[in-house]
Amino acid sequence: MVKVLVTGATGFIGNHIVAELLRRNVKVIATSRNIEKAKKFEWFSQVTYVPCTLPIDERTNYYEYFHRPSHIIHLAWEGLPNYLDVFHFERNLYHNYFFLKNLIINGLKDVSVIGTCLEYGLVNGCLSEQMPTNPHTAYGLAKDTLRRFLELMHKQYDFNFKWIRLFYTYGKGQSEKSLLAQLDKALENGERTFNMSGGEQIRDYLPVEKVAEYIVEISLQQAMQGIFNCCSGNPISIRKLVENYLTSKGKKIALNLGYFSYLTYEPFAFWGDNTKLKSVIKNDDYR
Amino acid sequence: MVKVLVTGATGFIGNHIVAELLRRNVKVIATSRNIEKAKKFEWFSQVTYVPCTLPIDERTNYYEYFHRPSHIIHLAWEGLPNYLDVFHFERNLYHNYFFLKNLIINGLKDVSVIGTCLEYGLVNGCLSEQMPTNPHTAYGLAKDTLRRFLELMHKQYDFNFKWIRLFYTYGKGQSEKSLLAQLDKALENGERTFNMSGGEQIRDYLPVEKVAEYIVEISLQQAMQGIFNCCSGNPISIRKLVENYLTSKGKKIALNLGYFSYLTYEPFAFWGDNTKLKSVIKNDDYR
Repeated sequence: MVKVLVTGATGFIGNHIVAELLRRNVKVIATSRNIEKAKKFEWFSQVTYVPCTLPIDERTNYYEYFHRPSHIIHLAWEGLPNYLDVFHFERNLYHNYFFLKNLIINGLKDVSVIGTCLEYGLVNGCLSEQMPTNPHTAYGLAKDTLRRFLELMHKQYDFNFKWIRLFYTYGKGQSEKSLLAQLDKALENGERTFNMSGGEQIRDYLPVEKVAEYIVEISLQQAMQGIFNCCSGNPISIRKLVENYLTSKGKKIALNLGYFSYLTYEPFAFWGDNTKLKSVIKNDDYR
Repeated sequence: MVKVLVTGATGFIGNHIVAELLRRNVKVIATSRNIEKAKKFEWFSQVTYVPCTLPIDERTNYYEYFHRPSHIIHLAWEGLPNYLDVFHFERNLYHNYFFLKNLIINGLKDVSVIGTCLEYGLVNGCLSEQMPTNPHTAYGLAKDTLRRFLELMHKQYDFNFKWIRLFYTYGKGQSEKSLLAQLDKALENGERTFNMSGGEQIRDYLPVEKVAEYIVEISLQQAMQGIFNCCSGNPISIRKLVENYLTSKGKKIALNLGYFSYLTYEPFAFWGDNTKLKSVIKNDDYR
Protein backbone atom coordinates (compact mmCIF):
# COMPACT_ATOMS: atom_id res chain seq x y z
CA MET A 1 0.00 0.00 0.00
CA VAL A 2 1.21 3.47 -0.85
CA LYS A 3 1.93 5.40 2.35
CA VAL A 4 3.91 8.60 1.94
CA LEU A 5 6.04 10.12 4.67
CA VAL A 6 6.14 13.91 4.19
CA THR A 7 8.84 15.76 6.13
CA GLY A 8 8.55 19.48 6.64
CA ALA A 9 4.79 18.98 6.40
CA THR A 10 4.02 22.31 8.06
CA GLY A 11 6.24 24.28 5.71
CA PHE A 12 5.18 26.40 2.74
CA ILE A 13 5.37 23.59 0.19
CA GLY A 14 4.88 20.69 2.63
CA ASN A 15 1.40 21.89 3.54
CA HIS A 16 0.38 21.84 -0.12
CA ILE A 17 2.00 18.42 -0.67
CA VAL A 18 -0.02 16.90 2.15
CA ALA A 19 -3.20 18.45 0.73
CA GLU A 20 -2.38 17.13 -2.75
CA LEU A 21 -1.74 13.59 -1.44
CA LEU A 22 -4.99 13.59 0.53
CA ARG A 23 -6.86 14.81 -2.56
CA ARG A 24 -5.58 11.65 -4.26
CA ASN A 25 -6.65 9.48 -1.30
CA VAL A 26 -3.06 8.59 -0.53
CA LYS A 27 -2.27 7.69 3.08
CA VAL A 28 0.03 10.32 4.62
CA ILE A 29 2.49 10.16 7.50
CA ALA A 30 3.28 13.79 8.24
CA THR A 31 6.23 14.96 10.29
CA SER A 32 7.69 18.25 11.46
CA ARG A 33 9.38 19.56 14.57
CA ASN A 34 6.36 21.14 16.20
CA ILE A 35 3.08 19.27 16.72
CA GLU A 36 1.35 22.41 18.01
CA LYS A 37 2.00 24.15 14.69
CA ALA A 38 0.86 21.02 12.82
CA LYS A 39 -2.45 20.93 14.72
CA LYS A 40 -3.44 24.22 13.14
CA PHE A 41 -3.52 22.75 9.63
CA GLU A 42 -6.79 21.51 8.12
CA TRP A 43 -5.21 18.20 7.21
CA PHE A 44 -4.06 17.36 10.74
CA SER A 45 -6.92 14.99 11.54
CA GLN A 46 -6.57 13.19 8.20
CA VAL A 47 -2.90 12.16 8.53
CA THR A 48 -0.81 10.12 10.91
CA TYR A 49 1.33 12.77 12.55
CA VAL A 50 4.70 11.86 14.10
CA PRO A 51 6.97 14.64 15.36
CA CYS A 52 10.69 14.47 14.66
CA THR A 53 13.69 16.72 15.27
CA LEU A 54 17.11 16.42 13.66
CA PRO A 55 19.77 15.29 14.31
CA ILE A 56 18.39 11.78 14.71
CA ASP A 57 19.07 9.41 17.56
CA GLU A 58 21.20 6.81 15.77
CA ARG A 59 19.86 3.98 17.93
CA THR A 60 16.33 4.46 16.59
CA ASN A 61 14.96 2.63 13.55
CA TYR A 62 13.17 5.54 11.83
CA TYR A 63 11.54 3.30 9.26
CA GLU A 64 9.61 1.64 12.09
CA TYR A 65 9.23 4.94 13.95
CA PHE A 66 7.36 6.36 10.95
CA HIS A 67 5.14 3.25 10.54
CA ARG A 68 6.98 1.71 7.57
CA PRO A 69 6.18 4.22 4.83
CA SER A 70 6.40 3.10 1.19
CA HIS A 71 7.62 6.53 0.02
CA ILE A 72 9.23 9.61 1.44
CA ILE A 73 8.95 13.15 0.12
CA HIS A 74 11.73 14.86 2.02
CA LEU A 75 11.15 18.61 2.16
CA ALA A 76 12.45 19.47 5.63
CA TRP A 77 15.51 21.71 5.66
CA GLU A 78 16.49 24.07 8.45
CA GLY A 79 18.20 27.44 8.28
CA LEU A 80 16.43 28.96 5.28
CA PRO A 81 16.50 31.48 3.73
CA ASN A 82 20.05 32.25 4.89
CA TYR A 83 21.57 30.74 1.76
CA LEU A 84 25.13 31.74 2.63
CA ASP A 85 25.26 30.29 6.15
CA VAL A 86 27.86 27.49 6.52
CA PHE A 87 25.37 25.76 8.84
CA HIS A 88 23.90 24.24 5.67
CA PHE A 89 26.92 22.11 4.90
CA GLU A 90 28.63 21.99 8.29
CA ARG A 91 25.60 20.56 10.12
CA ASN A 92 22.40 20.28 8.16
CA LEU A 93 23.85 18.23 5.31
CA TYR A 94 24.86 15.55 7.81
CA HIS A 95 21.66 15.68 9.79
CA ASN A 96 19.71 15.04 6.61
CA TYR A 97 22.10 12.43 5.23
CA PHE A 98 22.01 10.28 8.37
CA PHE A 99 18.23 10.69 8.63
CA LEU A 100 17.71 9.40 5.09
CA LYS A 101 20.36 6.70 5.43
CA ASN A 102 18.64 5.37 8.56
CA LEU A 103 15.32 5.09 6.71
CA ILE A 104 16.89 3.47 3.64
CA ILE A 105 18.97 0.84 5.40
CA ASN A 106 15.94 -0.05 7.50
CA GLY A 107 13.74 -0.68 4.48
CA LEU A 108 12.44 2.46 2.77
CA LYS A 109 12.15 1.77 -0.96
CA ASP A 110 11.16 5.05 -2.62
CA VAL A 111 12.97 8.28 -1.85
CA SER A 112 12.19 11.72 -3.26
CA VAL A 113 14.33 14.56 -1.94
CA ILE A 114 13.96 18.25 -2.66
CA GLY A 115 16.96 19.91 -4.29
CA THR A 116 17.44 23.42 -5.59
CA CYS A 117 18.31 25.30 -8.74
CA LEU A 118 21.16 26.80 -6.70
CA GLU A 119 22.99 23.49 -7.23
CA TYR A 120 23.80 24.68 -10.75
CA GLY A 121 25.75 27.68 -9.50
CA LEU A 122 26.36 30.93 -11.34
CA VAL A 123 25.16 29.72 -14.73
CA ASN A 124 22.83 31.73 -16.93
CA GLY A 125 20.35 30.38 -19.43
CA CYS A 126 18.25 27.25 -19.62
CA LEU A 127 19.43 24.76 -17.01
CA SER A 128 18.98 21.05 -17.68
CA GLU A 129 19.43 18.19 -15.27
CA GLN A 130 22.49 16.68 -16.96
CA MET A 131 24.54 19.86 -16.64
CA PRO A 132 27.45 19.68 -14.19
CA THR A 133 26.73 21.36 -10.88
CA ASN A 134 28.96 24.04 -9.43
CA PRO A 135 27.20 25.57 -6.42
CA HIS A 136 28.62 28.75 -4.96
CA THR A 137 26.27 29.19 -2.01
CA ALA A 138 26.48 27.23 1.24
CA TYR A 139 22.88 26.12 0.75
CA GLY A 140 23.40 25.02 -2.86
CA LEU A 141 26.60 23.21 -1.90
CA ALA A 142 24.91 21.35 0.95
CA LYS A 143 22.03 20.18 -1.24
CA ASP A 144 24.33 19.21 -4.09
CA THR A 145 26.55 17.25 -1.71
CA LEU A 146 23.58 15.50 -0.10
CA ARG A 147 22.55 14.38 -3.59
CA ARG A 148 26.04 13.05 -4.30
CA PHE A 149 26.10 11.15 -1.00
CA LEU A 150 22.70 9.62 -1.78
CA GLU A 151 23.72 8.74 -5.34
CA LEU A 152 26.62 6.76 -3.92
CA MET A 153 24.28 5.06 -1.43
CA HIS A 154 21.97 4.29 -4.34
CA LYS A 155 24.68 2.04 -5.80
CA GLN A 156 24.67 -0.08 -2.64
CA TYR A 157 21.01 -0.14 -1.59
CA ASP A 158 17.91 -1.00 -3.55
CA PHE A 159 15.57 2.00 -3.63
CA ASN A 160 14.01 4.34 -6.16
CA PHE A 161 15.77 7.69 -5.98
CA LYS A 162 14.34 10.95 -7.28
CA TRP A 163 15.99 14.31 -6.71
CA ILE A 164 13.67 17.22 -7.40
CA ARG A 165 15.25 20.62 -8.03
CA LEU A 166 12.93 23.48 -7.19
CA PHE A 167 13.16 26.81 -8.92
CA TYR A 168 10.94 29.66 -7.64
CA THR A 169 7.60 29.18 -5.95
CA TYR A 170 4.90 31.59 -4.91
CA GLY A 171 1.52 31.33 -3.26
CA LYS A 172 -0.37 30.95 -0.01
CA GLY A 173 1.90 30.44 2.97
CA GLN A 174 5.07 31.78 1.36
CA SER A 175 7.74 33.46 3.47
CA GLU A 176 6.90 36.99 4.52
CA LYS A 177 10.28 38.00 3.13
CA SER A 178 9.47 36.82 -0.38
CA LEU A 179 8.80 39.28 -3.17
CA LEU A 180 5.09 38.67 -3.73
CA ALA A 181 4.40 38.49 0.02
CA GLN A 182 6.03 41.91 0.36
CA LEU A 183 3.91 43.14 -2.54
CA ASP A 184 0.73 41.83 -0.86
CA LYS A 185 1.73 43.65 2.30
CA ALA A 186 2.32 46.91 0.46
CA LEU A 187 -1.10 46.58 -1.19
CA GLU A 188 -2.80 45.84 2.13
CA ASN A 189 -1.16 48.86 3.70
CA GLY A 190 -2.39 51.00 0.83
CA GLU A 191 1.11 52.11 -0.09
CA ARG A 192 1.57 54.12 -3.27
CA THR A 193 4.92 52.71 -4.36
CA PHE A 194 6.58 49.34 -4.12
CA ASN A 195 10.36 49.27 -3.67
CA MET A 196 12.02 46.49 -5.64
CA SER A 197 15.12 45.59 -7.63
CA GLY A 198 15.59 46.60 -11.27
CA GLY A 199 13.28 43.71 -12.12
CA GLU A 200 15.10 42.83 -15.34
CA GLN A 201 16.46 39.57 -13.95
CA ILE A 202 14.98 36.40 -15.45
CA ARG A 203 13.64 33.57 -13.28
CA ASP A 204 11.37 30.54 -13.45
CA TYR A 205 8.27 30.68 -11.24
CA LEU A 206 5.49 28.22 -10.43
CA PRO A 207 2.49 28.57 -8.13
CA VAL A 208 2.88 26.42 -5.03
CA GLU A 209 -0.13 24.22 -5.85
CA LYS A 210 1.53 23.32 -9.15
CA VAL A 211 4.85 22.62 -7.43
CA ALA A 212 3.05 20.31 -4.98
CA GLU A 213 1.27 18.51 -7.81
CA TYR A 214 4.51 17.98 -9.76
CA ILE A 215 6.41 16.73 -6.72
CA VAL A 216 3.64 14.25 -5.90
CA GLU A 217 3.54 13.05 -9.53
CA ILE A 218 7.29 12.54 -9.59
CA SER A 219 7.26 10.77 -6.24
CA LEU A 220 4.43 8.35 -7.08
CA GLN A 221 5.60 7.35 -10.56
CA GLN A 222 8.00 4.45 -10.89
CA ALA A 223 9.19 4.74 -14.47
CA MET A 224 11.89 7.37 -14.04
CA GLN A 225 14.55 8.12 -11.47
CA GLY A 226 17.38 10.61 -11.12
CA ILE A 227 17.22 14.38 -11.16
CA PHE A 228 14.07 16.33 -12.10
CA ASN A 229 13.83 20.07 -12.58
CA CYS A 230 10.55 21.20 -11.02
CA CYS A 231 9.94 24.33 -13.05
CA SER A 232 7.69 26.03 -15.58
CA GLY A 233 10.23 26.14 -18.38
CA ASN A 234 8.96 29.69 -19.03
CA PRO A 235 11.51 32.42 -18.33
CA ILE A 236 9.93 35.57 -16.92
CA SER A 237 11.39 38.85 -15.71
CA ILE A 238 10.71 39.75 -12.11
CA ARG A 239 9.12 42.98 -13.32
CA LYS A 240 6.69 41.07 -15.55
CA LEU A 241 5.96 38.62 -12.75
CA VAL A 242 4.98 41.50 -10.48
CA GLU A 243 2.92 43.18 -13.21
CA ASN A 244 1.08 39.93 -13.98
CA TYR A 245 0.39 39.46 -10.29
CA LEU A 246 -1.06 42.95 -9.97
CA THR A 247 -3.23 42.41 -13.07
CA SER A 248 -4.55 39.10 -11.73
CA LYS A 249 -5.53 40.83 -8.50
CA GLY A 250 -6.93 43.90 -10.27
CA LYS A 251 -4.63 46.13 -8.23
CA LYS A 252 -2.29 49.01 -9.01
CA ILE A 253 0.86 50.27 -7.33
CA ALA A 254 3.82 52.26 -8.69
CA LEU A 255 6.91 50.05 -9.03
CA ASN A 256 10.03 51.75 -7.67
CA LEU A 257 12.37 49.79 -9.94
CA GLY A 258 16.06 49.78 -9.01
CA TYR A 259 15.52 50.56 -5.32
CA PHE A 260 17.32 47.34 -4.29
CA SER A 261 20.46 46.10 -6.01
CA TYR A 262 20.55 42.70 -7.63
CA LEU A 263 21.68 39.71 -5.54
CA THR A 264 25.29 38.79 -6.33
CA TYR A 265 24.93 35.11 -5.44
CA GLU A 266 22.37 34.35 -8.13
CA PRO A 267 22.85 34.30 -11.90
CA PHE A 268 21.12 37.19 -13.64
CA ALA A 269 19.00 35.17 -16.03
CA PHE A 270 18.22 31.49 -15.60
CA TRP A 271 15.30 29.10 -15.90
CA GLY A 272 14.73 25.36 -15.97
CA ASP A 273 14.55 22.87 -18.81
CA ASN A 274 11.31 21.01 -18.11
CA THR A 275 11.59 18.31 -20.79
CA LYS A 276 12.00 15.50 -18.27
CA LEU A 277 9.23 16.84 -16.06
CA LYS A 278 6.85 16.94 -19.03
CA SER A 279 7.52 13.29 -19.76
CA VAL A 280 6.31 12.44 -16.25
CA ILE A 281 3.38 14.88 -16.12
CA LYS A 282 1.25 13.62 -18.97
CA ASN A 283 -1.93 15.63 -18.44
CA ASP A 284 -1.15 19.13 -17.35
CA ASP A 285 -3.69 21.94 -17.37
CA TYR A 286 -1.01 24.49 -16.50
CA ARG A 287 1.16 24.81 -19.55
CA MET B 1 59.67 33.18 7.91
CA VAL B 2 58.59 30.15 5.95
CA LYS B 3 57.60 27.35 8.33
CA VAL B 4 55.71 24.48 6.78
CA LEU B 5 53.35 22.22 8.72
CA VAL B 6 53.34 18.78 7.11
CA THR B 7 50.50 16.47 8.15
CA GLY B 8 50.78 12.76 7.53
CA ALA B 9 54.54 13.24 7.79
CA THR B 10 55.20 9.55 8.43
CA GLY B 11 53.19 8.43 5.40
CA PHE B 12 54.56 7.28 2.04
CA ILE B 13 54.57 10.73 0.45
CA GLY B 14 54.82 12.75 3.69
CA ASN B 15 58.21 11.28 4.50
CA HIS B 16 59.56 12.42 1.14
CA ILE B 17 57.95 15.86 1.50
CA VAL B 18 59.69 16.43 4.83
CA ALA B 19 63.01 15.34 3.29
CA GLU B 20 62.49 17.66 0.31
CA LEU B 21 61.70 20.65 2.56
CA LEU B 22 64.75 20.01 4.73
CA ARG B 23 66.91 19.74 1.61
CA ARG B 24 65.75 23.28 0.83
CA ASN B 25 66.52 24.44 4.38
CA VAL B 26 62.86 25.12 5.08
CA LYS B 27 61.73 24.88 8.69
CA VAL B 28 59.34 21.96 9.17
CA ILE B 29 56.64 21.27 11.72
CA ALA B 30 55.83 17.60 11.25
CA THR B 31 52.72 15.91 12.58
CA SER B 32 51.21 12.45 12.56
CA ARG B 33 49.26 10.30 14.95
CA ASN B 34 52.13 8.24 16.30
CA ILE B 35 55.32 9.81 17.66
CA GLU B 36 56.96 6.40 18.08
CA LYS B 37 56.65 5.76 14.35
CA ALA B 38 57.91 9.29 13.63
CA LYS B 39 61.03 8.76 15.75
CA LYS B 40 62.19 6.08 13.31
CA PHE B 41 62.58 8.54 10.45
CA GLU B 42 65.94 10.13 9.69
CA TRP B 43 64.43 13.59 9.69
CA PHE B 44 62.94 13.34 13.20
CA SER B 45 65.70 15.30 14.93
CA GLN B 46 65.64 18.03 12.27
CA VAL B 47 61.94 18.97 12.57
CA THR B 48 59.62 20.22 15.26
CA TYR B 49 57.38 17.24 15.81
CA VAL B 50 53.88 17.70 17.26
CA PRO B 51 51.54 14.69 17.42
CA CYS B 52 47.89 15.13 16.46
CA THR B 53 44.87 12.84 16.10
CA LEU B 54 41.60 13.68 14.34
CA PRO B 55 38.88 14.60 15.07
CA ILE B 56 40.18 17.80 16.64
CA ASP B 57 39.23 19.22 20.01
CA GLU B 58 37.21 22.27 18.91
CA ARG B 59 38.33 24.30 21.94
CA THR B 60 41.98 24.17 20.83
CA ASN B 61 43.60 26.82 18.62
CA TYR B 62 45.56 24.55 16.28
CA TYR B 63 47.38 27.43 14.65
CA GLU B 64 49.04 28.12 18.02
CA TYR B 65 49.28 24.40 18.82
CA PHE B 66 51.43 23.93 15.70
CA HIS B 67 53.64 26.97 16.47
CA ARG B 68 52.07 29.37 13.95
CA PRO B 69 53.14 27.81 10.65
CA SER B 70 53.24 29.98 7.52
CA HIS B 71 52.16 27.08 5.27
CA ILE B 72 50.45 23.74 5.54
CA ILE B 73 50.90 20.77 3.23
CA HIS B 74 47.99 18.61 4.28
CA LEU B 75 48.58 14.99 3.32
CA ALA B 76 47.00 13.13 6.23
CA TRP B 77 43.99 11.04 5.31
CA GLU B 78 42.77 7.96 7.14
CA GLY B 79 41.12 4.85 5.81
CA LEU B 80 43.17 4.26 2.67
CA PRO B 81 43.28 2.33 0.44
CA ASN B 82 39.64 1.29 0.98
CA TYR B 83 38.40 3.71 -1.67
CA LEU B 84 34.79 2.56 -1.47
CA ASP B 85 34.32 2.88 2.30
CA VAL B 86 31.67 5.46 3.27
CA PHE B 87 33.92 6.37 6.20
CA HIS B 88 35.66 8.75 3.80
CA PHE B 89 32.68 11.08 3.44
CA GLU B 90 30.68 10.18 6.54
CA ARG B 91 33.51 10.94 8.99
CA ASN B 92 36.87 11.75 7.50
CA LEU B 93 35.65 14.60 5.29
CA TYR B 94 34.39 16.41 8.38
CA HIS B 95 37.41 15.63 10.51
CA ASN B 96 39.62 17.18 7.85
CA TYR B 97 37.34 20.12 7.13
CA PHE B 98 37.12 21.22 10.76
CA PHE B 99 40.86 20.68 11.23
CA LEU B 100 41.68 22.98 8.31
CA LYS B 101 38.98 25.49 9.22
CA ASN B 102 40.40 25.78 12.74
CA LEU B 103 43.86 26.55 11.35
CA ILE B 104 42.56 29.06 8.81
CA ILE B 105 40.30 31.06 11.08
CA ASN B 106 43.12 31.22 13.62
CA GLY B 107 45.58 32.71 11.14
CA LEU B 108 47.07 30.21 8.68
CA LYS B 109 47.68 31.98 5.38
CA ASP B 110 48.86 29.36 2.90
CA VAL B 111 47.00 26.08 2.49
CA SER B 112 47.95 23.22 0.17
CA VAL B 113 45.74 20.14 0.37
CA ILE B 114 46.22 16.84 -1.39
CA GLY B 115 43.39 15.80 -3.70
CA THR B 116 43.06 12.86 -6.04
CA CYS B 117 42.52 12.03 -9.70
CA LEU B 118 39.50 10.04 -8.46
CA GLU B 119 37.68 13.38 -8.11
CA TYR B 120 37.21 13.34 -11.89
CA GLY B 121 35.19 10.12 -11.79
CA LEU B 122 34.77 7.61 -14.59
CA VAL B 123 36.26 9.77 -17.32
CA ASN B 124 38.81 8.48 -19.82
CA GLY B 125 41.49 10.49 -21.57
CA CYS B 126 43.55 13.48 -20.59
CA LEU B 127 42.11 15.08 -17.46
CA SER B 128 42.58 18.81 -16.94
CA GLU B 129 41.88 20.82 -13.82
CA GLN B 130 38.98 22.82 -15.24
CA MET B 131 36.93 19.72 -16.09
CA PRO B 132 33.83 19.20 -13.96
CA THR B 133 34.26 16.58 -11.27
CA ASN B 134 31.94 13.63 -10.91
CA PRO B 135 33.46 11.23 -8.38
CA HIS B 136 31.95 7.78 -8.08
CA THR B 137 34.02 6.42 -5.20
CA ALA B 138 33.52 7.30 -1.54
CA TYR B 139 37.13 8.46 -1.34
CA GLY B 140 36.92 10.62 -4.47
CA LEU B 141 33.63 12.09 -3.30
CA ALA B 142 35.03 12.97 0.12
CA LYS B 143 38.08 14.70 -1.35
CA ASP B 144 36.03 16.52 -3.97
CA THR B 145 33.58 17.70 -1.31
CA LEU B 146 36.36 18.84 1.01
CA ARG B 147 37.69 20.94 -1.87
CA ARG B 148 34.27 22.49 -2.46
CA PHE B 149 33.88 23.29 1.25
CA LEU B 150 37.31 24.94 1.28
CA GLU B 151 36.61 26.87 -1.93
CA LEU B 152 33.57 28.37 -0.23
CA MET B 153 35.66 29.20 2.85
CA HIS B 154 38.20 30.78 0.52
CA LYS B 155 35.61 33.40 -0.42
CA GLN B 156 35.32 34.46 3.23
CA TYR B 157 38.86 34.15 4.57
CA ASP B 158 42.13 35.51 3.25
CA PHE B 159 44.51 32.64 2.48
CA ASN B 160 46.32 31.15 -0.50
CA PHE B 161 44.59 27.94 -1.50
CA LYS B 162 46.15 25.20 -3.59
CA TRP B 163 44.51 21.86 -4.21
CA ILE B 164 46.91 19.24 -5.55
CA ARG B 165 45.43 16.23 -7.33
CA LEU B 166 47.70 13.21 -7.19
CA PHE B 167 47.66 10.56 -9.86
CA TYR B 168 49.78 7.43 -9.31
CA THR B 169 52.96 7.32 -7.28
CA TYR B 170 55.59 4.64 -6.77
CA GLY B 171 58.81 4.35 -4.83
CA LYS B 172 60.37 3.69 -1.47
CA GLY B 173 57.85 3.31 1.31
CA GLN B 174 54.84 2.58 -0.89
CA SER B 175 52.01 0.39 0.36
CA GLU B 176 52.77 -3.32 0.35
CA LYS B 177 49.54 -3.79 -1.57
CA SER B 178 50.63 -1.61 -4.47
CA LEU B 179 51.59 -3.12 -7.80
CA LEU B 180 55.33 -2.44 -7.82
CA ALA B 181 55.68 -3.43 -4.14
CA GLN B 182 54.05 -6.75 -5.02
CA LEU B 183 56.44 -7.08 -7.94
CA ASP B 184 59.45 -6.40 -5.68
CA LYS B 185 58.19 -9.07 -3.30
CA ALA B 186 57.78 -11.62 -6.09
CA LEU B 187 61.33 -10.87 -7.27
CA GLU B 188 62.71 -11.20 -3.73
CA ASN B 189 60.95 -14.51 -3.29
CA GLY B 190 62.46 -15.72 -6.56
CA GLU B 191 59.07 -16.44 -8.07
CA ARG B 192 58.92 -17.37 -11.75
CA THR B 193 55.68 -15.66 -12.65
CA PHE B 194 53.96 -12.46 -11.56
CA ASN B 195 50.17 -12.46 -11.45
CA MET B 196 48.67 -9.19 -12.62
CA SER B 197 45.76 -7.67 -14.53
CA GLY B 198 45.64 -7.51 -18.31
CA GLY B 199 47.99 -4.56 -18.06
CA GLU B 200 46.46 -2.72 -20.99
CA GLN B 201 44.94 0.00 -18.80
CA ILE B 202 46.51 3.44 -19.14
CA ARG B 203 47.64 5.46 -16.10
CA ASP B 204 49.89 8.36 -15.13
CA TYR B 205 52.79 7.51 -12.80
CA LEU B 206 55.43 9.55 -11.04
CA PRO B 207 58.23 8.47 -8.69
CA VAL B 208 57.56 9.58 -5.14
CA GLU B 209 60.60 11.88 -4.97
CA LYS B 210 59.24 13.77 -7.96
CA VAL B 211 55.76 13.98 -6.43
CA ALA B 212 57.31 15.40 -3.24
CA GLU B 213 59.31 17.94 -5.22
CA TYR B 214 56.25 19.09 -7.19
CA ILE B 215 54.07 19.38 -4.11
CA VAL B 216 56.73 21.46 -2.33
CA GLU B 217 57.15 23.70 -5.39
CA ILE B 218 53.41 24.26 -5.65
CA SER B 219 53.12 24.94 -1.93
CA LEU B 220 55.99 27.45 -1.74
CA GLN B 221 55.13 29.47 -4.84
CA GLN B 222 52.72 32.37 -4.48
CA ALA B 223 51.85 33.21 -8.07
CA MET B 224 49.16 30.62 -8.70
CA GLN B 225 46.31 29.18 -6.73
CA GLY B 226 43.49 26.74 -7.40
CA ILE B 227 43.68 23.15 -8.58
CA PHE B 228 46.91 21.53 -9.78
CA ASN B 229 47.25 18.11 -11.35
CA CYS B 230 50.39 16.49 -9.92
CA CYS B 231 51.20 14.12 -12.74
CA SER B 232 53.69 13.23 -15.45
CA GLY B 233 51.42 14.02 -18.37
CA ASN B 234 52.77 10.82 -19.95
CA PRO B 235 50.20 8.06 -20.35
CA ILE B 236 51.67 4.60 -19.84
CA SER B 237 50.14 1.13 -19.82
CA ILE B 238 50.49 -0.84 -16.60
CA ARG B 239 52.22 -3.57 -18.60
CA LYS B 240 54.82 -1.14 -19.92
CA LEU B 241 55.28 0.35 -16.44
CA VAL B 242 56.09 -3.11 -15.08
CA GLU B 243 58.39 -3.93 -18.00
CA ASN B 244 60.26 -0.63 -17.58
CA TYR B 245 60.63 -1.30 -13.87
CA LEU B 246 62.08 -4.76 -14.50
CA THR B 247 64.49 -3.35 -17.08
CA SER B 248 65.66 -0.61 -14.69
CA LYS B 249 66.37 -3.26 -12.06
CA GLY B 250 67.93 -5.67 -14.55
CA LYS B 251 65.46 -8.36 -13.49
CA LYS B 252 63.22 -10.83 -15.31
CA ILE B 253 59.97 -12.50 -14.37
CA ALA B 254 57.17 -13.92 -16.52
CA LEU B 255 54.10 -11.66 -16.45
CA ASN B 256 50.88 -13.62 -15.97
CA LEU B 257 48.74 -11.00 -17.72
CA GLY B 258 44.99 -11.20 -17.18
CA TYR B 259 45.20 -13.09 -13.87
CA PHE B 260 43.29 -10.32 -12.07
CA SER B 261 40.32 -8.56 -13.62
CA TYR B 262 40.33 -4.81 -14.13
CA LEU B 263 39.00 -2.58 -11.34
CA THR B 264 35.48 -1.41 -12.13
CA TYR B 265 35.71 1.81 -10.14
CA GLU B 266 38.50 3.31 -12.22
CA PRO B 267 38.36 4.52 -15.82
CA PHE B 268 40.27 2.26 -18.20
CA ALA B 269 42.57 4.87 -19.68
CA PHE B 270 43.28 8.22 -18.07
CA TRP B 271 46.18 10.54 -17.37
CA GLY B 272 46.71 14.11 -16.25
CA ASP B 273 47.11 17.34 -18.17
CA ASN B 274 50.27 18.86 -16.65
CA THR B 275 50.17 22.24 -18.40
CA LYS B 276 49.51 24.16 -15.19
CA LEU B 277 52.10 22.17 -13.25
CA LYS B 278 54.74 22.92 -15.89
CA SER B 279 54.09 26.64 -15.54
CA VAL B 280 54.99 26.36 -11.84
CA ILE B 281 57.92 23.97 -12.20
CA LYS B 282 60.29 25.99 -14.33
CA ASN B 283 63.43 23.87 -14.15
CA ASP B 284 62.61 20.22 -14.24
CA ASP B 285 65.16 17.50 -14.90
CA TYR B 286 62.45 14.85 -15.06
CA ARG B 287 60.53 15.54 -18.26
